[in-house]
Amino acid sequence: MTTLLPNAVNPPRRILMGPGPSDVHPRVWAALAAPTVGHLDPYFLQIMNETQAMLRQVFRTTNELTLAVSGTGSAGMETCVVNLIEPGDKMVVCVNGVFGGRMADVAARCGAQVTIMERPFGEIFSTAEIADVVQKVQPKVVGIVNAETSTGAWQPLEEIAKVVHDAGALLLVDCVTSLGGVPLEVDAWGLDAVYSGTQKCLSCPPGLAPVTFSPRAVAAVEARKTKVASWYLDLTMVRNYWGQSRAYHHTAPINMNYGLHEALRLVLEEGLEARHARHLKNHKALKAGLAAIGIKYAVAEGQQLPMLNAVLIPEGIDDVAVRGQLLNEFGIEIGGGLGPMKGKTWRIGLMGEASSPRNVLLFLAALERCLSDRGYKLSPGASIAAANAFYAKT
Amino acid sequence: MTTLLPNAVNPPRRILMGPGPSDVHPRVWAALAAPTVGHLDPYFLQIMNETQAMLRQVFRTTNELTLAVSGTGSAGMETCVVNLIEPGDKMVVCVNGVFGGRMADVAARCGAQVTIMERPFGEIFSTAEIADVVQKVQPKVVGIVNAETSTGAWQPLEEIAKVVHDAGALLLVDCVTSLGGVPLEVDAWGLDAVYSGTQKCLSCPPGLAPVTFSPRAVAAVEARKTKVASWYLDLTMVRNYWGQSRAYHHTAPINMNYGLHEALRLVLEEGLEARHARHLKNHKALKAGLAAIGIKYAVAEGQQLPMLNAVLIPEGIDDVAVRGQLLNEFGIEIGGGLGPMKGKTWRIGLMGEASSPRNVLLFLAALERCLSDRGYKLSPGASIAAANAFYAKT
Repeated sequence: MTTLLPNAVNPPRRILMGPGPSDVHPRVWAALAAPTVGHLDPYFLQIMNETQAMLRQVFRTTNELTLAVSGTGSAGMETCVVNLIEPGDKMVVCVNGVFGGRMADVAARCGAQVTIMERPFGEIFSTAEIADVVQKVQPKVVGIVNAETSTGAWQPLEEIAKVVHDAGALLLVDCVTSLGGVPLEVDAWGLDAVYSGTQKCLSCPPGLAPVTFSPRAVAAVEARKTKVASWYLDLTMVRNYWGQSRAYHHTAPINMNYGLHEALRLVLEEGLEARHARHLKNHKALKAGLAAIGIKYAVAEGQQLPMLNAVLIPEGIDDVAVRGQLLNEFGIEIGGGLGPMKGKTWRIGLMGEASSPRNVLLFLAALERCLSDRGYKLSPGASIAAANAFYAKT
Repeated sequence: MTTLLPNAVNPPRRILMGPGPSDVHPRVWAALAAPTVGHLDPYFLQIMNETQAMLRQVFRTTNELTLAVSGTGSAGMETCVVNLIEPGDKMVVCVNGVFGGRMADVAARCGAQVTIMERPFGEIFSTAEIADVVQKVQPKVVGIVNAETSTGAWQPLEEIAKVVHDAGALLLVDCVTSLGGVPLEVDAWGLDAVYSGTQKCLSCPPGLAPVTFSPRAVAAVEARKTKVASWYLDLTMVRNYWGQSRAYHHTAPINMNYGLHEALRLVLEEGLEARHARHLKNHKALKAGLAAIGIKYAVAEGQQLPMLNAVLIPEGIDDVAVRGQLLNEFGIEIGGGLGPMKGKTWRIGLMGEASSPRNVLLFLAALERCLSDRGYKLSPGASIAAANAFYAKT
């Protein structure tokens, strides 16, 4: 064969305001490029310990079983489900978006008897309806999404955890998009199995999935009668590598773990409360700006995620063309709608590093241009004026 | 909670001569740190296409289904098994080391009826014995390890592929350690499902698993009656993301893929034949040096992997102490034995970037020191003289 040699990697410089990955701090890129050491090198074991300690702080937990799974967020989902579910176990999955649907699919593949609770995309579940179903079904596990990346809906968890525990079940939660962006209290709320991703509000490139298991969830894993269906994601082995025995399981992604380590340091340097406040402030500024040019949110007031702003595409405006112009003319990535929201919503991420006044103002200015180019009626500069007015008073 | 903030990542500079990860070229580290773009960004789709084209060249295949799984080598193993096996399918697994054993475990978890063929650690399988078992069992899949990282044994494949196909079965091969270090001809030899890792002879940090499926293997996946047990590793969906439709599946590890892209460029710049010759030459030099100080290989002559030199620890020499001295005094990592070889062998990797005269000479010099410190009888400088003599005549 003739050798075909492409050019070296030389990516365009994007501003990542989609549903993730989000903008990455240069310190994280630098950490990714630090010298590789072996997966059993004492130095790497120290990095693992420190990463676990930082993850516990970010998850707000003392759970011993807290680690970074060697895959992206969906591998985190599969890790939680596959370790808790044995064939025939009952699981209730709350589906109000793509990721709830994915969880139901994962659970069925593990052999769970899945009961799906459904809500239209963009809505959230009430504690009462979950209590009702959980009492009837008596499942082993209830799965729910805290921050539906596909819809922008923010699902409260604290009361739901209580009714799930009252029924003797475990609560499994998707926090891929919420971790590091909004308050999340794994211990105080009693969440049992929680997974996240690195590429949302932690602002690390994708590649790892932080997970944490409560003592109750660990007991369920230890009480299994069958082997975990996935060897790669089997926490009964993975935890020995991350734990005292350091038994070799698989070769961890060394440099990705360096990156996560630095990303977590950035989160803790800022402080969780300050970080959550920043996400909220920039969300409100964006929202004020969008309102001033007539752009409406797809999710009801009070249920909108600050880091994932799903808005309705105005009538007659070409979804793909606007996103193409944002990307090609301004280097700004936003997301389109997923599933039934395709062509109906834009998903504007303000996650981690990307949640900044700079990005809010630039995005609004660029969006005004894209909309005006297509004959959309707006008062030029109105979104900027509104966002700046909001910032001025905070 | 009080915030506990560890120091920034600042790894020691190692020379990685263990069973992997191997030394990484600085160009690969630089690629890892390139600006992150979105997983559906046109630029990233181009990187995916180029990576696939380069992987096909390195695998020596035209298989369309050739891509990098978003996990480490063991995720590649699980991908191959879980996509080919449905509950009740028969699989023969050849076990002569840790990784064959792992494959049997993975297959059983997928519900395969597993027939294990066993050979002592360090030995290889004959075509005749495999033909015999395959004719009797009539399996759907036969799994075998090309380069047993746990033992250093090199298993030929070409004749075995013929007898496996004669019985109507598919051949699934672990090439984690062989790819890029020794000749591997996926198409010419008729290998059906092949997986590798990035952190061996490709000299990229761990985090991705190159896999390739022959048209026969793809047909088997397409003929499945049940869903693939793992959602994350389900190639019927993953291939759509890597293929023309670009349907979103999971968020690929963007920066890891940058790293693999650059690592593959380095492989192809050197050329496969030159790279294989380099691995062989440095292996022979190391072997000459070791022989001169009485260190023997654990694997029979003619079956020794050039990139993974498993040698017997001399009587009375403390395994852990020597490896500790190599690491702490010289920054050299080598591996200990795995499974039944623990405490009996050292595994000296000469993989990818780490396969160099510089590393061979330094390692021999350092080993002489560690052995002499423990009263081992050797003629000082003999290993260096022998290795240099070998290099001088080649």
